[in-house]
Amino acid sequence: MEAVHSRTRELSREESLQYLENKSYVGRVAFIAGGRPTILPVNYLAEAGSIVFCTAAGGTLSALGGGAPVAFEVDSNRPLFHTGWSVLVHGTARAVTEPEEVVRLQRGPLRSWAVAAPAHWIRISIEQISGRRLAEA
Amino acid sequence: MEAVHSRTRELSREESLQYLENKSYVGRVAFIAGGRPTILPVNYLAEAGSIVFCTAAGGTLSALGGGAPVAFEVDSNRPLFHTGWSVLVHGTARAVTEPEEVVRLQRGPLRSWAVAAPAHWIRISIEQISGRRLAEA
Repeated sequence: MEAVHSRTRELSREESLQYLENKSYVGRVAFIAGGRPTILPVNYLAEAGSIVFCTAAGGTLSALGGGAPVAFEVDSNRPLFHTGWSVLVHGTARAVTEPEEVVRLQRGPLRSWAVAAPAHWIRISIEQISGRRLAEA
Repeated sequence: MEAVHSRTRELSREESLQYLENKSYVGRVAFIAGGRPTILPVNYLAEAGSIVFCTAAGGTLSALGGGAPVAFEVDSNRPLFHTGWSVLVHGTARAVTEPEEVVRLQRGPLRSWAVAAPAHWIRISIEQISGRRLAEA
C-alpha cells in the first residue's frame, strides 16, 4: 500500500456524524441501476441515525425505494489550501410510506432546490459512517 | 412522473464537458465493491474524452483498474441562492499501465491533495455525459 500523505486524518464516528448533520446542504447518493453504479446529487437532512431526501417519482424512486444498498457522500474543500474533508455513509434506502411521516417531513426544514412540493421521500439508514480530513499544508 | 421544478435546465454535451474540464477540482467516483455501491472523492483532470485520477494502491485500485463500470460526478452550489449545477459521467475505469503515460501524467498539472507522489493512475472513459443547472430563484 502506497504511502498516503500524512496530512490525512480519519474522523471519529462522532465527528463524521457532526459533519454530515451540520456542514453540508448537498450530498450524493450512489446506487446500482441496470447493473452499473450511478450518482444522484440531492438536498438532504440527517437526523436520528438516518438521512432523508426527496425525489421526483420514476427511475430513482423505483431503483432505491425497496431496500437498495446505497452509499451517501458529502464533502467540502478549499482549493487554495489543498484541504478538505469528506464523509461516507453506507446504508439501505427505503421509501417513506407512512402518511404521517411524509406530512412531518413536508413540514420540516428540508427543501429540495430541484423538486417542488415533493411527495416522495427516501430514508437511508446509517449502517457505516467514516470520514477524513486533510489539514492545511 | 412528478413535476420537477421548472428552474432545472439540462446542459448540452458541450456544456457538460466544459463544466467537467474547467469548473471543479474534486469529483466523486462511484463504483461497486463487494456487491455494494461506494463513493471515493478524488482530485481529477479531464482531458481528451477521459478523466484521470491517481490513487494509493490497494482496494480502490484492484476494484477499479480492470475495466469496472463507474460513475463520476462533479457539482457546485450556492446555498444562499438555492442554485447549482451537476455533471454526471458513466464510463469504464482502467489502470494506466504504459510507463511513458504514467510519467507524462506525473509531470502534468494534476496533483492529489491526499496522495503524495502517486504511482497509480486510473483513467475513466467518458461514455455518457449529462448535466443540469438550477437557475437562480
